[in-house]
Amino acid sequence: MEERQISKAVIKRLPRYYRYLGEILNSGVERISSGELSSKMQVTASQIRQDLNNFGGFGQQGYGYNVKYLYDEIGKILGVNQKHSMIIIGAGNFGHALANYDFEKNGFVTKAIFDVRPELAGTLVRGVPVLMMDQLESYVRREQIEIAVLTLPKSRVAEVADRLVKCGIKALWNFAHLDLIVPDGVVVENVHLVDSLMQLSYRISHYDGNEE
Amino acid sequence: MEERQISKAVIKRLPRYYRYLGEILNSGVERISSGELSSKMQVTASQIRQDLNNFGGFGQQGYGYNVKYLYDEIGKILGVNQKHSMIIIGAGNFGHALANYDFEKNGFVTKAIFDVRPELAGTLVRGVPVLMMDQLESYVRREQIEIAVLTLPKSRVAEVADRLVKCGIKALWNFAHLDLIVPDGVVVENVHLVDSLMQLSYRISHYDGNEE
Repeated sequence: MEERQISKAVIKRLPRYYRYLGEILNSGVERISSGELSSKMQVTASQIRQDLNNFGGFGQQGYGYNVKYLYDEIGKILGVNQKHSMIIIGAGNFGHALANYDFEKNGFVTKAIFDVRPELAGTLVRGVPVLMMDQLESYVRREQIEIAVLTLPKSRVAEVADRLVKCGIKALWNFAHLDLIVPDGVVVENVHLVDSLMQLSYRISHYDGNEE
Repeated sequence: MEERQISKAVIKRLPRYYRYLGEILNSGVERISSGELSSKMQVTASQIRQDLNNFGGFGQQGYGYNVKYLYDEIGKILGVNQKHSMIIIGAGNFGHALANYDFEKNGFVTKAIFDVRPELAGTLVRGVPVLMMDQLESYVRREQIEIAVLTLPKSRVAEVADRLVKCGIKALWNFAHLDLIVPDGVVVENVHLVDSLMQLSYRISHYDGNEE
């Protein structure tokens, strides 16, 4: 499939399409019109057609979309048709919560959790071993880890990100409330919870509806 | 201050301005040019001028921005100059992690955590009491809770959201991986972790740089 330059807004919507199509597929539906998908997703049918047209002709006039096909194609575009190996840095509350989350069904496999506290060495969180930070580089290289989840204190994140970049990490999923500076080629995706809460508080006082 | 209609893109950037200005303020700097702010934030100076012009004339030609003034004004716009009362529904791993997070310094005060497990009744998480779900409505009304954080299983979220809406909650901060349908006037802000991971995996295979 030939790919065009796709806008960031469309990419942000893709995981949501993927989720809805997965649910529709699970409910046994084989094909769906953009109108039906539109009413389920609370997005206009024309937006759906436009978005999906970015990826070539999934839909057919009068037939609608083949749910399984569309689901699989979006999965491929998102890269969730293949496994991604992941480590979590920081075995604190967030590290634990993320280790217990079932990301594996979407292909994200947590292989280890790293921490500095010796008393945690060798313990397991949902079957995932806690390793010590001095093993970080050798582990990342040996296991060809793609993604590191950063749930450690703000003051230590930059240094750890540097170490990860040096041993070839592809992506940092950053939960610390700061912006990381990384070399070209390394992906940083931030989950800034405080920013999300501030947008929520903005919207409480300037309510103008909910939308995706 | 008169407010114009502000685009969602600008609003998304405001918490980041607020964070940087807070750090600049803490470091003792009283005024800053859009050029200096631009190099710190890795955003173009013209974007900064455009964004901040939405809120009237904070900057003065040849002087730059008064950091404290701008910080306070953005804080007011975001609504973080006042306290917001918050409850967490679900005392699982995520509920614990969020209860332990210091949102209070930005004005978000967690008053209670709700769960269904009787063995948790009356326990404390970082000083915050765990209450039982049958106390939910009376507590939200009596304490005039504004924000409910939803960290409970997907299958139970819709029902609990309904109960919260009926007792006058203003906003739902939703961590469950589904879209909530709420009446007009109730704000829903989602933290969809799986979607964030999928965007990360998309970007691993279609790298085009990091930006805010």
